[in-house]
Parts: sequence; structure tokens; C-alpha cells
Amino acid sequence: MNHPQTFSIRDIGSMHIGGREVVLGGLAEREVLYSPGNPPVMVDPNGAFEVEQMYVQYVRLAAPKARHPLLLMHGGGLCGVTYETKPDGQPGWQSWFLHAGHDVYVADAVERGRASWARFPEIFQGEPHFRTKAEAWELFRFGADGSWNGSASASSANPGTLFPIAAFDQFMKQATPRWTTTDHATLAAYNTLVDDHGPFVIITHSQGANFAFRMAAAHPDKVAAIVAVEPSGFPGASQESLSALRHIPHLFVWGDHMDSSALWRRIRQGLNQYGNTLRSQGVAVDELDLPAIGVGGNSHMLMMDTNSNLVANLIQKWLANKGLMQKKRPTGPL
Amino acid sequence: MNHPQTFSIRDIGSMHIGGREVVLGGLAEREVLYSPGNPPVMVDPNGAFEVEQMYVQYVRLAAPKARHPLLLMHGGGLCGVTYETKPDGQPGWQSWFLHAGHDVYVADAVERGRASWARFPEIFQGEPHFRTKAEAWELFRFGADGSWNGSASASSANPGTLFPIAAFDQFMKQATPRWTTTDHATLAAYNTLVDDHGPFVIITHSQGANFAFRMAAAHPDKVAAIVAVEPSGFPGASQESLSALRHIPHLFVWGDHMDSSALWRRIRQGLNQYGNTLRSQGVAVDELDLPAIGVGGNSHMLMMDTNSNLVANLIQKWLANKGLMQKKRPTGPL
Repeated sequence: MNHPQTFSIRDIGSMHIGGREVVLGGLAEREVLYSPGNPPVMVDPNGAFEVEQMYVQYVRLAAPKARHPLLLMHGGGLCGVTYETKPDGQPGWQSWFLHAGHDVYVADAVERGRASWARFPEIFQGEPHFRTKAEAWELFRFGADGSWNGSASASSANPGTLFPIAAFDQFMKQATPRWTTTDHATLAAYNTLVDDHGPFVIITHSQGANFAFRMAAAHPDKVAAIVAVEPSGFPGASQESLSALRHIPHLFVWGDHMDSSALWRRIRQGLNQYGNTLRSQGVAVDELDLPAIGVGGNSHMLMMDTNSNLVANLIQKWLANKGLMQKKRPTGPL
Repeated sequence: MNHPQTFSIRDIGSMHIGGREVVLGGLAEREVLYSPGNPPVMVDPNGAFEVEQMYVQYVRLAAPKARHPLLLMHGGGLCGVTYETKPDGQPGWQSWFLHAGHDVYVADAVERGRASWARFPEIFQGEPHFRTKAEAWELFRFGADGSWNGSASASSANPGTLFPIAAFDQFMKQATPRWTTTDHATLAAYNTLVDDHGPFVIITHSQGANFAFRMAAAHPDKVAAIVAVEPSGFPGASQESLSALRHIPHLFVWGDHMDSSALWRRIRQGLNQYGNTLRSQGVAVDELDLPAIGVGGNSHMLMMDTNSNLVANLIQKWLANKGLMQKKRPTGPL
């Protein structure tokens, strides 16, 4: 007998998208000890590799209610795990939106998670950046600038934060190294994803928003809507080119404690300008400013905050208002 | 209306298991250019990090038929994607065993996929190894030793191979870098996983087999059976300690073209000895030697070969014969 919370799925699967072959030569052989106790072996690192692919996992429902599948895009230094079970063990947005009737695709961008990464500096340029707990604590507005004191505690957190502070270390286990030199490859892979498998409704977070905005510009027919959850950047596109996005409604979602972070005040100012530029070209841009409607306490990681279901529900209502929960009428014989 | 192939699930989720905090100090600040056009910023790499955790994703059925959940463990230089959609686009063993009535847990071991990896050489010792196409081609017995000629082709492949050669590059996109210095952390995380979430029936592949054997030795009450698909190693345990595994049936599964690889002939000899040692201590060890029962053509990546459903079905029958498809009777009030 099915529990009322169970749901019926058509399939679960994954794919790697994009990427290319690179052949390395001229590197020195080196000694590797594979198994302690056995003699070391000489390993030749030269040869051919596949690099710069991305990873996408999908769960498709037996009876989806949404018009298009939903693509969940993560932010910088993170991967698709952002949307899975939350650090405090509660269900995340992947589950929430499946229950709400969406086929859900979750991406790991190039270099992150199951997308894998390539040798550096020979293939990926430069070095990876590993985010410290201090940086995450302040960048994600769990606490104010300068508040990190060596461990996650309620006393150093932003007052009334809804991020589950006790699960901060568990959250940090989700962190992935990031390069600053791979954006072109990431965008190329995302473009291939939407072109081959779109149209999608996109929910994108932080660094992922800029990729989503660019994907929409490159493939306006393959993006049905963009929900940008605390977007951290935007393209330097010409005003005119944005008119091609007129049929793509945008929703910007903002959490609380913006005053605690100089960086986020600057970022938000830029995004406000980008929103106004979109509007001037006829794009519908809505804003869900959570504190302004009386929902206080959200961090940058809204999908992990204790009120993540409430926020998801507000996004879902917006999608429904935009007609995206109505299936298209069949246009041909069934 | 449900398609007959659909199935009902209770939940899908994930977790990071194990790991520890490391604090780095004394590293030099460096200039990072996050966004071209903006000035570079100085980044301080010192601070606290979570490292050595593993990642596990689970799909639990509304009405599982198996006695215990199934844990799928991948091999070296790979991650849990091994068991998802196959490189040729067909459903993999994750889907197959869900349809067969198992709750399925898929692991990404420490350093691989969504488990993430740590700065080296400061935290992970040594350098990562990136597997070349040549190494994969011969190690996974798609072709014989020395047969790689720069691209995957039927003419250089082992005759009659069931690996989908046309999808070789797609398979290589699943490859992950690997260290040779992290086994202790990987084993610690796996031990925590089975101790906290077991008992499991385990299907493990290649490098993963040695971890499964060691998990069984550490937590014999949390492992119900081990299906070792082309195991590549085994523990140097004392004979006596293996008697604790008496209640854990083992199945070793072997593919074809062993003669094409000197390494695999050696590995198999060692595993035959380990199997005999287990038997001498009263452990039931069965062997599924596919060519010996007339199933030819399997590579090392049996779960991706075109007859992967047939092999899965043979494993499923073995599990059923061991009583692992019968639910336990409830022992207390419901």
C-alpha cells in the first residue's frame, strides 16, 4: 500500500553532456605505489582524456503535471547536491518539485561533482579554489562580515537565521573545489543541454544564474522561465539582444540579512539594474523579496533553510501563474 | 495512467558520510581573477575545511520486496555513475534493481564524484592519477593488452565484446581522478555507512570489492551478502578472522577475455585463493563464471555491456536463492 507521500516515476537516469578529447604528451613518467607492500610501478601520464563534460541526473514522473521539465542549477563551489536532502536531513527542493508534479533534472556543472575535473595546469588553467568555512559563513550570510570565530554557533550567526546552523559542517561536506577559468566550458555544456533536451523551466542559484541568463540568450526557444535564486551575476549583453527574451518570465528571489554583507549589497544593486534593463526590453521580471513580504531569516542557501518548503511553494505559485503548470493541448493524433 | 514500467518510490535523497575537519595555515595568499574585466582579488587559502567524507544517494521504494537495501559500490577511477544510465543510453543496474524490488543506495567513495576532494599535497597526499583512454581500453578488457591504437574501434576490440564500443568516449566522460593514498579514509567512510545504515546487501565492482570485504570484516552484522563483480583485490586478513563472515554468502562474477590481460589473469588467481580461504572458514562462496555457462563477450564493465540485464538477472536469482528476497517476518507489534 502506498504512503500518501509516495510518487510514481517513469525513470531515473543520468547523462554526461558536451566535453571534448584532449591528448597530453611530453609529461614525465612517475612512480606510483598503488598498494602498500607491492613494489611501485612507473605510470605514464601521457595520453588521451575526455574533459569539460557536465553531468545531469533526471527523475521523470509517470504523470508530470508541469508543461516542461525543471532544470535545477547550483551555484559556485557547489554541485547538484544543493537540491537534494538538506544538511539537516530534511527533504530538499528536488523532492519538493517532484511532488509538485515536475520532471526534475539536476546538473553538476563542468569540474563539479560527477561532472569530474581535468589535470591542471595542463588542461584546466590555473589552480582550484577551496572555499574555507570562514568564507562560506560570511558569503552565504549565515553570519555577518567578520563574524566567523572558528566554529558555527548561534551567537555568531545572523539573528533569526533560518539556516540550520547545527548542520553547518554537514553543509561544508558538499563543497567542491572551483576554478575561475572554466566558465566558457561550463556555458558550452549548459547550452548543449538545453538545446538537446529543452525547453526547460530553470531554477538557478547564485553563480548559476549568469549561466542561465546566457543560455536563454543563446537558445531563447529552449528556456521557458528563469527563477534566479539570489543571482550573483549577469551578462554584459546589449539591451537590444535582451528583447529576444520577451517570452521568458524571470523571477528574482532574495533572502534576508543583506545588510550583513557588503558584497551582497553590491551584487543586488547590479542585478536590480539588470532586471530593469530586461523590463525595458519587454521582459516580465518579478521580484520575490522575502523580507519585504514578511518572511525574514533566509540565508543565501534558501533551499536549505528551515522554511525551504514555504519558499518553494511561493516559486511554484509564480510558475502556475505564468501558465507553466498547464500541460500543452495535444496538437496531433495521440 | 501508469506505464507498466513505472514504479512507486517512497523517497529519493542523499547524504555525506564521515569526514573530518582540517585546518590549513601558513599558505601564501594568491591573486585570483574571478571575473574577466574586474580587478583580481587576493585570496587567502588558509582556514578550515571538511574533508574525506563520502556521498551516498538512495532511492527507496514504496513497497520494497528485498529483505535489505542494496548498496552499489563502484571501482577505481570511477564513481556511482557506473550504475546509472549506461554510456549507450540504456538503463543501468540502479534502475534494474529498483524494478526488481530493492531499495538502492549508490555510493561515491571519498575523493570521487559528489564526495568531493581535498587540496593536495597538503591534505590528500601525493598527486591524483588521471586514467588515459589507452589504460581504460586495456584494463577494462575492451581490447587486449597493446591493442589501443588511438581510438575505440571494433577492429581493435576483443572479438565479440559486448561493451558498446561506439559509446567508449561517453564512458570515459565518467572517469574521475584517483589518489593512491586515500584508502584508509575511504574504508573509514564505508564502515560508518554500513554501521549507521546497514545491514546492506552489497554489489561491489573492481577496486570496491576490497572495501566491501573489509567492511564485512569490521561489521559482519551489517553486511548480508557480497556480490563482487570482477573484484580486483582482497584483504590480507588472518584465516581465523574470516570465520566471522560465515553467515555472509559471497558471489564472485567474472566476464570474458581474461586471456587478453596479464593483469587480470594475476588478479583472478589471487581472488581464487581468497575464495578458497573463505570456504575453508565456512563461508559460502559461489562463482558466476559467465563464459563457463556459455555467456561470452563480457568486459570488466559488465554493468554497461549490452547483456547487463541478463547478468543482473543471474545475480538477482542468486540473491533470491540465498533468501534475500523474502521480507523478514515482523517480530513485534506493527
